[in-house]
Order: sequence, then structure tokens, then C-alpha cells
Amino acid sequence: MNAPVYTLGQLAQRLGATLRGPADKVITGLATLQDANSQQLSFLANPQYRKHLASCQAAAVLLTVADAQSYSGDALIVANPYLAYAELSHAFDRKPVAAAGVHPSAVVAADAQVDSTASIGAFAVIESGASIAAGVTVGAHCVVGARSVIGEGGWLAPRVTIYHDVRIGKAVVIQSGAVLGGEGFGFANEKGVWQKIAQIGGVVIGDNVEIGANTTIDRGALADTLIGNGVKLDNQIMIAHNVQVGDNTAMAGCVGISGSTKIGKNCMIAGGVGMVGHIEVCDGVFVTGMTMVTRSITEPGSYSSGTAMQPAGEWRKSAARIRQLDDMARRLQQLEKQLAAVTSSGNASSDA
Amino acid sequence: MNAPVYTLGQLAQRLGATLRGPADKVITGLATLQDANSQQLSFLANPQYRKHLASCQAAAVLLTVADAQSYSGDALIVANPYLAYAELSHAFDRKPVAAAGVHPSAVVAADAQVDSTASIGAFAVIESGASIAAGVTVGAHCVVGARSVIGEGGWLAPRVTIYHDVRIGKAVVIQSGAVLGGEGFGFANEKGVWQKIAQIGGVVIGDNVEIGANTTIDRGALADTLIGNGVKLDNQIMIAHNVQVGDNTAMAGCVGISGSTKIGKNCMIAGGVGMVGHIEVCDGVFVTGMTMVTRSITEPGSYSSGTAMQPAGEWRKSAARIRQLDDMARRLQQLEKQLAAVTSSGNASSDA
Amino acid sequence: MNAPVYTLGQLAQRLGATLRGPADKVITGLATLQDANSQQLSFLANPQYRKHLASCQAAAVLLTVADAQSYSGDALIVANPYLAYAELSHAFDRKPVAAAGVHPSAVVAADAQVDSTASIGAFAVIESGASIAAGVTVGAHCVVGARSVIGEGGWLAPRVTIYHDVRIGKAVVIQSGAVLGGEGFGFANEKGVWQKIAQIGGVVIGDNVEIGANTTIDRGALADTLIGNGVKLDNQIMIAHNVQVGDNTAMAGCVGISGSTKIGKNCMIAGGVGMVGHIEVCDGVFVTGMTMVTRSITEPGSYSSGTAMQPAGEWRKSAARIRQLDDMARRLQQLEKQLAAVTSSGNASSDA
Repeated sequence: MNAPVYTLGQLAQRLGATLRGPADKVITGLATLQDANSQQLSFLANPQYRKHLASCQAAAVLLTVADAQSYSGDALIVANPYLAYAELSHAFDRKPVAAAGVHPSAVVAADAQVDSTASIGAFAVIESGASIAAGVTVGAHCVVGARSVIGEGGWLAPRVTIYHDVRIGKAVVIQSGAVLGGEGFGFANEKGVWQKIAQIGGVVIGDNVEIGANTTIDRGALADTLIGNGVKLDNQIMIAHNVQVGDNTAMAGCVGISGSTKIGKNCMIAGGVGMVGHIEVCDGVFVTGMTMVTRSITEPGSYSSGTAMQPAGEWRKSAARIRQLDDMARRLQQLEKQLAAVTSSGNASSDA
Repeated sequence: MNAPVYTLGQLAQRLGATLRGPADKVITGLATLQDANSQQLSFLANPQYRKHLASCQAAAVLLTVADAQSYSGDALIVANPYLAYAELSHAFDRKPVAAAGVHPSAVVAADAQVDSTASIGAFAVIESGASIAAGVTVGAHCVVGARSVIGEGGWLAPRVTIYHDVRIGKAVVIQSGAVLGGEGFGFANEKGVWQKIAQIGGVVIGDNVEIGANTTIDRGALADTLIGNGVKLDNQIMIAHNVQVGDNTAMAGCVGISGSTKIGKNCMIAGGVGMVGHIEVCDGVFVTGMTMVTRSITEPGSYSSGTAMQPAGEWRKSAARIRQLDDMARRLQQLEKQLAAVTSSGNASSDA
Repeated sequence: MNAPVYTLGQLAQRLGATLRGPADKVITGLATLQDANSQQLSFLANPQYRKHLASCQAAAVLLTVADAQSYSGDALIVANPYLAYAELSHAFDRKPVAAAGVHPSAVVAADAQVDSTASIGAFAVIESGASIAAGVTVGAHCVVGARSVIGEGGWLAPRVTIYHDVRIGKAVVIQSGAVLGGEGFGFANEKGVWQKIAQIGGVVIGDNVEIGANTTIDRGALADTLIGNGVKLDNQIMIAHNVQVGDNTAMAGCVGISGSTKIGKNCMIAGGVGMVGHIEVCDGVFVTGMTMVTRSITEPGSYSSGTAMQPAGEWRKSAARIRQLDDMARRLQQLEKQLAAVTSSGNASSDA
């Protein structure tokens, strides 16, 4: 597959953009304002990068009407340059497209349903009663368990595991190494020994969801684990059994959500955040990186925990002082009382 | 495989429970008190949920003698409803059971031993000298390395890697994506360049261990990495080389244990906890979520680090103040001295 | 493969060490000073372990000239015992060596290039235009994507995914479950809905890099994600799109680096550290375990965040006080003013 090439006119047409410059100018790729060469298209989305416009070498730049006025070079003028870049990025993607059909090495159960437009990769295993819809790509080495369903237009990278009874919506993208429907961590303690609780719920994934590399989403203990429409999960995220994630919520890498916690819609959970189990986080919450969420959140807004980074020598002092904080607070209160007594006795004596 | 169906009488008999209600009542599943429909069995284990008994629609409820007195519906009366639920959960599990035998696509070394009652899945690779005991299931796409041993009754989900010289006890369950026996992080620094140290120890896993999805347990540098009997490890846990974990210790998701650390028996390590290397944690320790364990723990009990979550605006102030804590502590001490001087001089003058 | 056996003389020769003891003494393995039996070689690298020399049962010990003077047993005398141990560890490694050639079950694209001295394992998939250099081992179940390159002498454990357009240098070791070139977390928000941005950059890995089990390195959004020569990455590390890591930097397990962050050379990043995106960390930085790096670091040295572990009861008090810290700081300042007023009025009156 050769790298894709377009003319500036073709790209303007694709975006419905106003073209400033020659329609036949050749564009071979996308790049940042700083990196773009004379055959690449760039974009200005973040105002902080406006300073790079002057020295920009790009063939053309995606700009708003306002920014286009302070730039004399060729441009595609659009309402939202970042969204325009997002759309054009797919035109320049060299990700291989799998051909429809079942690879001869794949093992597909006799009673599994595979749409004729779906692509099943080498060594994939499709188990009994599973269903693969139209336009789905199942990568090499994927396993789709019994009775699981992959909705229309889904794309599974190589080496994804879907256990049994997992229902995945339309146009879901799953990166390599992800595991959906693993048995959640359920044990009953009997005199110090852990007895396993079978995890008999499933997993339900909405439409337009993205699931990152090596992310794990456990099946429910009784009811299903639920991931809403449009949810975006980065790499190495851990979603425990019976968690519910609301529509269009995004989580960055290495987040861990404990069992039965319910997260609202349109939340943004930064990298490394942890949430305890059995809490509720309302819609529209932003949690900053590596925060430990130990209680329910009922008001939209931004939440944090942790301490700011310091040079280790200073940090050791702060950390030691934190352990003395309760004592410090008591001494402070004591001082306030003593000083009040001194001041009032002083006042008393001067009154006398 | 159809969903399993039982009568209430069959379930009572299985548990040795006292049956209250018709023995021929049909039970099609398990559910919580809030979710159960008229064909599902529920249970009351957590006293906080007792309030849901009144409106419960379940066909019957697993109850203690005491709780049964305040509930008029059908019930199975048992000593420990949660353990009873744990036991019955397996009766309703629709997890497919693999047939004994080696899938024709599997690659099994000529000198590997595979018991005739074991099941080896599609595309599994069993290397030279490996041994698979009776009743073991090796899922599709698993790799069992040279000379490694899987004990009786083990269950490996699809896509598990066992490197060479890993010995796994009886009835061990390993979820998809787990990696046992990877080469630990051992390097000797030679003038700024890292020289690799071959990891020549193995991994030894006890009986009745559970290992979660995408969890990694590295092989020892010299001696073996050791996981005791009955240990339960959730997803995405990282166990470094030469770690030792005592019997019946449980760890929740995303825990990381650094090299050569030794953890006692019956510990509970909550999600996201990290432990530095070369420390010892005694038996019976509970570590709360996302705590950083930086030193040995010699007394059983509960341990924590980190700060409580706050709205981000307040958190920024707290975080800034933490960096000033050492200064604050010194000023507090100074104030105490000054106030003592004022008070004592005041006393002195009133004495005079 | 039998366990390797050497004579003490052979090992001395291999290291260029001074031999003290019989050249024909049989050495069957390596072990620590405490664990070594009479056929094993040990080493003294950490001065803290010097106390174990007296009771050491080892066949011989790797020692410096200085330490050899206070030990009467057999020894191999070398400049750096730890480096000598690192070198000899490979002699005792029982890791299977794969035979050259392509396993008959592997699927290799017609236009992929596989050197005749490379080994391609069972069920491996080598896609169109990929290139596998001399002496490379590609483990069972690996996928090497279109146009990706594995340089001379590389070793991929079973079950590694390399997406398309990933260039890997010479002698790179990749553990099982690692994913290189996954699609980074790039979305443009359009009225609450996330629009995917195609990730059209690649990944470039230098020479002599080691990548741990289940570690993920995302491809670039536009330009490539870059990992320098000699970088060592432990297990379950997450490297986001467009990160750059300088030569010989080492990261322990569970580290997460957010997008576009640039890390210098010869840094050491301890386990569980998180870094926000778009920052720069200079050469020679050491970050302690589970630190959250929220800003650029411009000076070499050691950095930390977080709080020290406490018993949970004390911790709850500290955590509550941290939330009051801003208030405490204001009250402290107030007290200082009041006390200054008292003292100065006292002084004033005694002056008077």
C-alpha cells in the first residue's frame, strides 16, 4: 500500500473548506506547524501554537477565518481546524484494511454466524453461537467466546479476547491485548480461605466505543458490566465487575475502577486515577491524574488528590511533617487559646 | 448450552438448607434483592441491604434463621447466605466446558506429557518437557513453555503465556492475557549502559490460586518467585522477580510489588497499591487503595498513604501548603517558644 | 536441554578472572551467598551482604581483590563482581533457543522479508512488507504488522503484537503480551461526542532496548513515538503517543507516560510513576515510586510526591488535617501577627 496523496482541492472539497491557493497542489501527509514540510498540510488549533505560523513551511494550513487573516500562505479555511484535522487524518491513515472473508486457518464454530462482509483473521477462534456482524474486522489471534456478539463495523486488532456472553455494539474499536468478559474478582471468605463466586453476568458495550491495548473489562457477578455509547478507554485500564460507565465518558491510561462503581456521562478521568467500589460519580466530572476517588461525587466539577512533586530532599521533610499534622493542628489551637488569654488578660489589666 | 434451570428443592438439597416454600418452584437464575424477578433466587448477606427485603420480587431468598423471621416469602435458610450464594453461583454458570483432548491445530512437543483427560485448545503450544495434569483446561492460543507443569484441575483462559520452568499447583485458574515467568527487570549498570542479567530462576505457584487478566508474574533472578496456596490476584497486577506471597493473601487490581519483597499470609492488598522492593510485610496486613508501601510492616493491621480527594481548587491550595509544611512547623515551634516567654515574663511581672 | 555445567577454570577464563581454587571444581549454577550450595557460584556486590561471607557454603565466590582478602574459600577475583555475575548469568540460562527457520504453521506474507537465520514460531503472522533481520527470534503467536522491521538479533517472546510501520533496532528484547504501535488516545470533542483522530505516525525503537510483559507503546499521532538506544522498560508500562525516551533511561513496572512528554537520557523512573503530557524531563533525573510528575523537570536530581505510609487510623487524621491546611496556614500567620503585637506592646511598655 503506497502512502496516500491528494490535491489541496480534493481535501478542500472533502471538508467543505474555503480553498486559498492552487487546487492542484500536492499534499502527501499531515504534520504539526513546526514539523510540516512543503508537501504536508498542517493545522492551527491551540492558540499557543499561533507563534509557529510565521515560520511554518507547510504546503497549506487548516485555519479559522480569523487566523487566516494573519497568515499569507495557502490555507483551507474551516470552522473548526481541529475537527477538520481529525477528519482528514483518516484519509492519510496507512492502517491496512483487511479483506472480507474467513482466513483458512481460523477456527469458526459450525453454529457461529459470520456475516459475509466480515473479515476473520489468521488463527482467530469464533466459538459456538457467536455472531459477527457486517463489516466487522476480527484480527489475527482473536478469540470470540460462545454466544458473544460483535456489532456492525467493529474493528478488533490482533490478539483480543472476548469471553462468552459479551455483547458489543456497532463500530467499536478494540486494541490488541484487551480482554473483555474475564471473571471478576469475587470470593467469599470462609475461615480465611477464599471460595470462588462464579461470575455469571456478562458485559454490554455500547456503540462507537474505543477500548485500548491491554485494557481489561470484567464480566458481571450477577448483572452485566455496562459501558455506554461513545465511551473512550485508553490502554491498560481495569474495569471491575458490574461497573457502569455513562455515555461519552473518556478515561486515560492506567485507570482502575473497582466493582459496582457507577460513573456518569461526559466525565473525563485522567491517567492513573483509581476509584473504590460501590460509589457513584455524577455526569460531567473531571478527575485529575492519579487521584484516588474514595467517595461518591454528586456535583459536576474537577477533583484531585495527592501531593505536588518536590525535590526528594524537600519531599522527605514534607512527608515527615504530614505525619505530625494532627499534632501540629492541636498545638496551633492551643496557641490560639493561650494567646487569647494573654491578650485578654493584657486588655483586662490595661482596662483596670 | 441452554441456561440452567433448577427447582427450589434441588437447590435446598445441594446446600443442605432448610426449605421454606414449594420444592417444585422453578429457579432460572440468581440476582440481587433489588433486581431479582419471580424466577430468580436472591440472598441477604450485607445487613445494609435488609431494607430491600420488603419489596423483593425474588422467587426465594437465601437467609439466616434470624433474617428469615422477618421475611414472609419463600426462602432457603442457611448458616451463611453469602457462602451459600457462592456455592450456587457455580450451578448457574454458563461458562463453556472444554471437551477433553488435544485440538488438531495445537502444537504439542513430542516429549511433552498431556493427560488424556486434559483439554488443549486451538492453536495452543505445549513445549518440550512440559506436563499437563488430569482435568486441566488449556485455552486457545496458550503457550506452555519448556518443562513447565500445570497441576491437576487447572483452568487457563485463552491467550495465557507460561514461560519455561514454571510450576503451577492444583486447581489454579488463570485469566486471559496473564504472563507467568517473564524475564524480570535485572540489569547491571556499566558506565551508564545497562547490561542484562539472565533470569535463571523460575516461578512456583501453589494450589487453588487465581490469577487475573493481564497480570504478570516474573521469574526469579536466581531463586524462584513464589506464590502460596489460595492466593487470589486480580487483573493487571505486577509481581516482580523473587517476590514471595503467603497463603490466602488477596490483591485487587493494578497492584505492583517490586523485586524480592516478601508478603505474609492472609493479607489484603487493595487496588493500585505499590510496594518497594526488598521489604517484608507480616501476616494479616490490610493495605488501603493506592497506598505506597515504602518500608517493612511488622504489625498486623491496616495501613494507608495518600491524601483525601478534594475539589481541585481546594486541592491546589492544600498541595501548595504541603510544600510549605516544614516551614509552618518551624514557625509553630517558634511561636510556642515566644508565647512561653511572653507568658512567663507576664507571670514573672505579676509575681514581682 | 540439560542444566549447564562448567568448571571453575572455564568460568575464570570466560571472565578473565583470577582463579583461587581448583580449576576442575564443578559449578552447576549461581545463587546468593545465603542460598548457594557447594556446587554453586555466588557473588558479593552489595556491601550489606558481606556479613554472609563467613557462613557461605558456595563452591566459590565472585569477589573484588579487597573482599577476597577477608575470605579464605575459593574465589574468582574480578574488578566488578556484579558485572561478572551479570555476564555469567547467561551461561546458566536454560531459556530455550529457537531453531532458525519458519514454523510450518506460521503465516508469512509473500512480500515479507525473513532472513534465513531468523526463527519464526508457531502461528506467528508476518504481514505484507515486514522485514525480519538475521538472528531474530519471533515467538509463537506474535504478529508483525505491515512494513514493520525487526532489527538484527532481536528476541520476541510468544504473544507480542507489533502493529504496522514500527521500526525496531538491533538486539531488542520484547516480553510476552507487549503491544507496540497501538492507536494512541486521540479524539476531538465535537459537542460532547468524541471524534477519532487516526494515528498516522509510527514507533521507532533504538538498539539494545528491553520491553517488559504487557507493556504498551502507542504509535504517534503525526510524528513517531521514539524510544532511544539502551532504554529498559519493565512490565505493564504505558507509553502514550509521541512520547520520546532518551538513551539508557530505565523505567520500573506500571509507569504511565502521557502523550508528547519528552524524557531525557540516563533517567531512572521508579515503579508506578505517572507523568502528565507535553512536559520535558531533563537527563539524569530519578523519580521515586508512584510520584505524579505534573510539570517539566529542568535540573538533574531526585523527585518525589505522595505521602508516607501510616497506620490507617493515624492516616485518616493526617488526611483530614491536610484538607484544613490552608486554614491552618492562615491561622498561623494570624497568630504570628498577634504575638508580634503583644510582644512589641510589651516591649513598648517596658521601654516606656
